[in-house]
Amino acid sequence: MPMDNPFRALDWIDGAVELIDQTKLPAELVMLRVDTVGAMVEAIKRLSVRGAPGLGVAGAFGVAIAVRADGPSGPALDASLDALRNARPTAVNLARMVDRCGALCAEGFDRVLAEALKIRDEEIVASISMGRRGADLVESLASTPVRVMTVCNTGTLATVERGTAFAVIHELHERGRLAEALPVETRPLLQGSRLTAWELQRIGAKFRLLVDAAGPFLLSRGHADVVLAGADRIAANGDTANKIGTFSLALAAAHANVPFIIVAPESTVDMATASGDEIEIEDRGPAEVASFGGVRTAPEDIDALNPAFDVTPASLITAIVTDRRVVRLDRGESLA
Amino acid sequence: MPMDNPFRALDWIDGAVELIDQTKLPAELVMLRVDTVGAMVEAIKRLSVRGAPGLGVAGAFGVAIAVRADGPSGPALDASLDALRNARPTAVNLARMVDRCGALCAEGFDRVLAEALKIRDEEIVASISMGRRGADLVESLASTPVRVMTVCNTGTLATVERGTAFAVIHELHERGRLAEALPVETRPLLQGSRLTAWELQRIGAKFRLLVDAAGPFLLSRGHADVVLAGADRIAANGDTANKIGTFSLALAAAHANVPFIIVAPESTVDMATASGDEIEIEDRGPAEVASFGGVRTAPEDIDALNPAFDVTPASLITAIVTDRRVVRLDRGESLA
Repeated sequence: MPMDNPFRALDWIDGAVELIDQTKLPAELVMLRVDTVGAMVEAIKRLSVRGAPGLGVAGAFGVAIAVRADGPSGPALDASLDALRNARPTAVNLARMVDRCGALCAEGFDRVLAEALKIRDEEIVASISMGRRGADLVESLASTPVRVMTVCNTGTLATVERGTAFAVIHELHERGRLAEALPVETRPLLQGSRLTAWELQRIGAKFRLLVDAAGPFLLSRGHADVVLAGADRIAANGDTANKIGTFSLALAAAHANVPFIIVAPESTVDMATASGDEIEIEDRGPAEVASFGGVRTAPEDIDALNPAFDVTPASLITAIVTDRRVVRLDRGESLA
Repeated sequence: MPMDNPFRALDWIDGAVELIDQTKLPAELVMLRVDTVGAMVEAIKRLSVRGAPGLGVAGAFGVAIAVRADGPSGPALDASLDALRNARPTAVNLARMVDRCGALCAEGFDRVLAEALKIRDEEIVASISMGRRGADLVESLASTPVRVMTVCNTGTLATVERGTAFAVIHELHERGRLAEALPVETRPLLQGSRLTAWELQRIGAKFRLLVDAAGPFLLSRGHADVVLAGADRIAANGDTANKIGTFSLALAAAHANVPFIIVAPESTVDMATASGDEIEIEDRGPAEVASFGGVRTAPEDIDALNPAFDVTPASLITAIVTDRRVVRLDRGESLA
């Protein structure tokens, strides 16, 4: 089982993928064993596995399963690869990693599995690197032990091990430099309360959960020393798209003179997008807003505006930490 | 019934108080008939009636019920008045109106009821006045039809009729000047989605509901022309305590150059409090943050930081509208 030593959100174990069924958290920790393409596509679609890096690894393992079942070429294999690639159309890592492994299918199962394991290991190395670079930066910017505010889930459950922004919190905790984490619950899908709180509890870090709107005010009252967030896409000028709520924390952090740091793998940097103005904001419709944990909270037949993510302008970002570098936007450094 | 012509959250009808049981909204509109002090105290405690002005009127009617049952003086009456005054210790209007009517008990039931009806009418007149002054101000500041963002519930359900900030939205709607209202859901207790959305639907206004963290970002993207909020307490320098989430909207409105207006009765202005730094922030504990409607949303045994309200500095407020005046903080006017 991938749950212990090291703790992984998913892995290849004895001929199949084992993954934490994130739809069951935080109530129970259930492992899913996935050994068909159909089961993997369903696991991705219902969000049993999520997070851009995690989805990339799931897709890569899925290609290995496809080659084993369908052989090294032919219409059945093509259909399997299409199903994996399109299980969630917006996650660019998924399609990219399916294609990277798909290009090796003619060489057979062993070669494809080796590539998928390499992708898994690359993600783990990237997370460890982000954690270390980010923790070094936080220690240089804030007095420790440090109080860290964060949004959404950027931990093991979004990657394979340790995470992106959460990897920095984990590293600070292991160094004995974390006073407290302050995750916001992250409506509408509650990744903060369902997943990040669960991960903080798992590693034994001290934390207090916040409703989203409390984050900006508590920053203004000096309750946090740094804000750490992940990224869905980083434009060439440093503007960063991330989970809705990131912008309001960045704005309040700037107002309170608290460092605001983005932590994301280098693959998130999209130099083909000049600025945040070019990033389209997906609206996920009213259903998520009108209910809460399965309970309806608003009248029937209402409309909602439900942007899934927001764009934080580079001017509000202190630094971007990737697995390869630290870019100090506050000092005029650029991603180019 | 107070539900029609005019629509009131509570009223004195045929010898008893009738009030909308707000704990049942938005699923169903249920009226409670209250004719004992015990039933009124329970209605206040479980939030069947809420909002500072609404609580003041409920308390005043409660004193009339007490005098009818207990007589014009004596230990039974004293115990009833204490129970009403302390049904919610933090709501200053409740204690103030119980004491105002309590001082007249020796003159008998008719005199006390007349005073309670006078308090009810004063609140209604104040709401109408706030609505008109606020709508005039909005029409002078923003191009119409106007898109209005708002937080919490400040409508009929927080007062007797029409409300405070919501009275302005209602007035703009009646004038044909409201393009759209954008209420935020207002975690943790969801007064925005449960109550404000219901009131907007009732008056036939066009609206879209937002999660709290979407408000600041949508302001930055030009989705609203003005933000309207109520107040729990306004300090002498204009700093304003209101429901958690107000600060983040004010900060984003200032960043986007969108007018941010507080609407509250004159009784909310507390000249004895010099600034927001003197306002204590009540923390309501982790239970509200970790679950909703019986559905647990976070792991067991977690801690939370749960400030019930926040303080918006006067520097972020364009104007304060009361039932008696408009104070343009943005032009250097002061409350003194």
